[in-house]
Amino acid sequence: MAYQQQISTWLQEHRKNGIQLLQKLVQEPSKRYQEEGAQAIVVEKCRELGLAIDLWEIGDETLRSHHHFYCDRHNFQGNPNLVAVKKGRGGGKSLILNGHIDVVPEGDHARWDDDPYSGVLRENKVYGRGTTDMKGGNVALLLAIEAITALDIPLKGDLIFQSVIEEESGGAGTLAAILRGYKADGAIIPEPTNLKLFPVQQGSMWFRLIVKGKSAHGGTRYEGESSIDLMTNVLHEIKKLENERNQQWKQHPLYQKIPIPIPINIGKMESGNWPSSVPETAIVEGRFGIAPTETMEEAKSSLETMIERLNQTDSWFRTKPIEIEWFGARWLPGSMDLEHALLKTVADAFKNVQGVEPIIEASPWGTDGGYLSTVGNIPTLVFGPGETKLAHDTNEYIEVDKMMAAAEIIALTILDWCEVAENV
Amino acid sequence: MAYQQQISTWLQEHRKNGIQLLQKLVQEPSKRYQEEGAQAIVVEKCRELGLAIDLWEIGDETLRSHHHFYCDRHNFQGNPNLVAVKKGRGGGKSLILNGHIDVVPEGDHARWDDDPYSGVLRENKVYGRGTTDMKGGNVALLLAIEAITALDIPLKGDLIFQSVIEEESGGAGTLAAILRGYKADGAIIPEPTNLKLFPVQQGSMWFRLIVKGKSAHGGTRYEGESSIDLMTNVLHEIKKLENERNQQWKQHPLYQKIPIPIPINIGKMESGNWPSSVPETAIVEGRFGIAPTETMEEAKSSLETMIERLNQTDSWFRTKPIEIEWFGARWLPGSMDLEHALLKTVADAFKNVQGVEPIIEASPWGTDGGYLSTVGNIPTLVFGPGETKLAHDTNEYIEVDKMMAAAEIIALTILDWCEVAENV
Repeated sequence: MAYQQQISTWLQEHRKNGIQLLQKLVQEPSKRYQEEGAQAIVVEKCRELGLAIDLWEIGDETLRSHHHFYCDRHNFQGNPNLVAVKKGRGGGKSLILNGHIDVVPEGDHARWDDDPYSGVLRENKVYGRGTTDMKGGNVALLLAIEAITALDIPLKGDLIFQSVIEEESGGAGTLAAILRGYKADGAIIPEPTNLKLFPVQQGSMWFRLIVKGKSAHGGTRYEGESSIDLMTNVLHEIKKLENERNQQWKQHPLYQKIPIPIPINIGKMESGNWPSSVPETAIVEGRFGIAPTETMEEAKSSLETMIERLNQTDSWFRTKPIEIEWFGARWLPGSMDLEHALLKTVADAFKNVQGVEPIIEASPWGTDGGYLSTVGNIPTLVFGPGETKLAHDTNEYIEVDKMMAAAEIIALTILDWCEVAENV
Repeated sequence: MAYQQQISTWLQEHRKNGIQLLQKLVQEPSKRYQEEGAQAIVVEKCRELGLAIDLWEIGDETLRSHHHFYCDRHNFQGNPNLVAVKKGRGGGKSLILNGHIDVVPEGDHARWDDDPYSGVLRENKVYGRGTTDMKGGNVALLLAIEAITALDIPLKGDLIFQSVIEEESGGAGTLAAILRGYKADGAIIPEPTNLKLFPVQQGSMWFRLIVKGKSAHGGTRYEGESSIDLMTNVLHEIKKLENERNQQWKQHPLYQKIPIPIPINIGKMESGNWPSSVPETAIVEGRFGIAPTETMEEAKSSLETMIERLNQTDSWFRTKPIEIEWFGARWLPGSMDLEHALLKTVADAFKNVQGVEPIIEASPWGTDGGYLSTVGNIPTLVFGPGETKLAHDTNEYIEVDKMMAAAEIIALTILDWCEVAENV
């Protein structure tokens, strides 16, 4: 491609600018309800790039009444969503470039080597909350757009850059952008895949199971019924359900090396309050993995049917049924056809830049790609710098080299996908 | 027995006095650190009965350095222990009558029908915290002594009445009385056995197990190691240990109808803190039942040996060993020979008063009888009015009829055991 060398050179020359933009973004702790500062920096950059800015506070009735709106946030005031469009000249395919601006809390400061929002650069890594998840990815998007803009390469298709809030809490920002009418022929989300290509992604829902036993003095524990013992039996059934649910997905080309494609994770258990008493109540909370092509309703029904069977067949649960609750945030699953042109386009760009074939895998976690593909019906690929294992952890960082490589691969993808117009 | 009718008549005539004494005692909430008020009422009664009063604050170095002192109380000031002796004329056997004055907290007032310390009398029941556990039993002891005193029946053996603190927190009050030198040929503790005779009693210790897994994202849970799963395996091993430990005790005459003579109760479990994460740490707390003739050291070693075996043989626990801690209060086990004369004496008195054979059972919980029999080497029988299931619960009450029956049976026991002197 004629433009590849120009883009590569431009990016090399502007590496420092990319680092500085990332540092500025990281220094604004854009935790939930505090996205404004970081978002303002992005808006400024988009204005500089000459994009058409659409900045709005989400939360209208259309959003709130949507059956996939899973958000518990009470107030969106002052922390807007952003979509910035680089209009094409017509004729090419359009592309959404979606990144979230919100970060998860930094946790215990004492466990960080630097201030969690330092943005310090050390050995070609930028450190701080949000570097990997996913301000590094956002900067890669902006660098790609800036390179194309600076090099004055005209596009046929529209480029729709999105800087959304609320991804970490379930994705209301991206859902709002879809409902506002932003569609495209494809979408890329540079979440931290460590430059792997994730065309399918697991969704998830949180559930809570409550089991009631019967209390008794520990010295006559046989007069009670331990809720820990009862829960242990339920968890055993959940393992069996997980095994059944995974049989077909183990055959999928992208899941053959994954021991459990769509796991059911038990993350928390609490039972009892006194060593000498038989524990009366046990509560577990878990994450129910949703298969890429499964609906939320199908997934819910799969667990509920199993619980209902226990409640009808088990002599104890017949009188004291297991309770099930779905709570907290949800992430829709998503998938694109493995033969889809967007996957091939990104894979080609990857090969051009990296010199090797990309690794194509299934995503073990949900992203806003669930909304884009399921609700927006937009083929969506998750591909970005940064590593999953660093996200949400202390001493989060991103490798600058990976961020720059992602920017180049995305820039080439844009040229290929949106097509370069004749420069008249 | 010539005196039986006199005692029975005296008790019938003084039923109201017994109720009033119980009400006064219940109206003093003698929770830990607040035993003074109720103890003062007992002291006054003992003076009235002409007993030799020994009232002292426990907590000296002899007590604190005793290897069976398991108390976490920092201050005993103002809340004394009481021993009150009715000296015999010589020649008979001595008897300790031991009751504790402390009560457990009343919990949520809203769950009580009356004020928890009302002492209200309704349908021949007195209500309030401590009625069953064990102020009703204490009143039965005092009524028995008062009947004998009022009827001017001279005894050969000494009668040693004890009103101790700290039973609910492990028994430091009774241990202090033993170390102060109070011994006897037998002891009776009127804890709530519902008039059954408990010649052997289970002891108990609290333990905590900590298991470490490996955290991971729930979407790739196979990369972690769930501490809930690991703990489930440990709990399975504990069930096997419990089964082994109980084989021999199931043969014991008093345990043949008890499914688990010395249970290991898991009362509490906590693991994990996030639905979408593999839980890294699991903690259980439980009550380890100690066989009537087992030492605390033997019991500890039994669990520790099993844990040690897992830590050496299990591939996971070899690198992250299960931790075990013993914490909180402990109750020594206790037992008396089933052929012992004291058991026969109380059984005879029971039959004389109730007209039927008593039920003789093993106690599923510990009492201060553990200290009396194990440290004091005093054959101790637990026998009293009130019901276990009401103890520590809301709306605790005692049936006045049972309290009066216990008083009569104990009075006859005293006459038989200590022997009546010739009234010269």
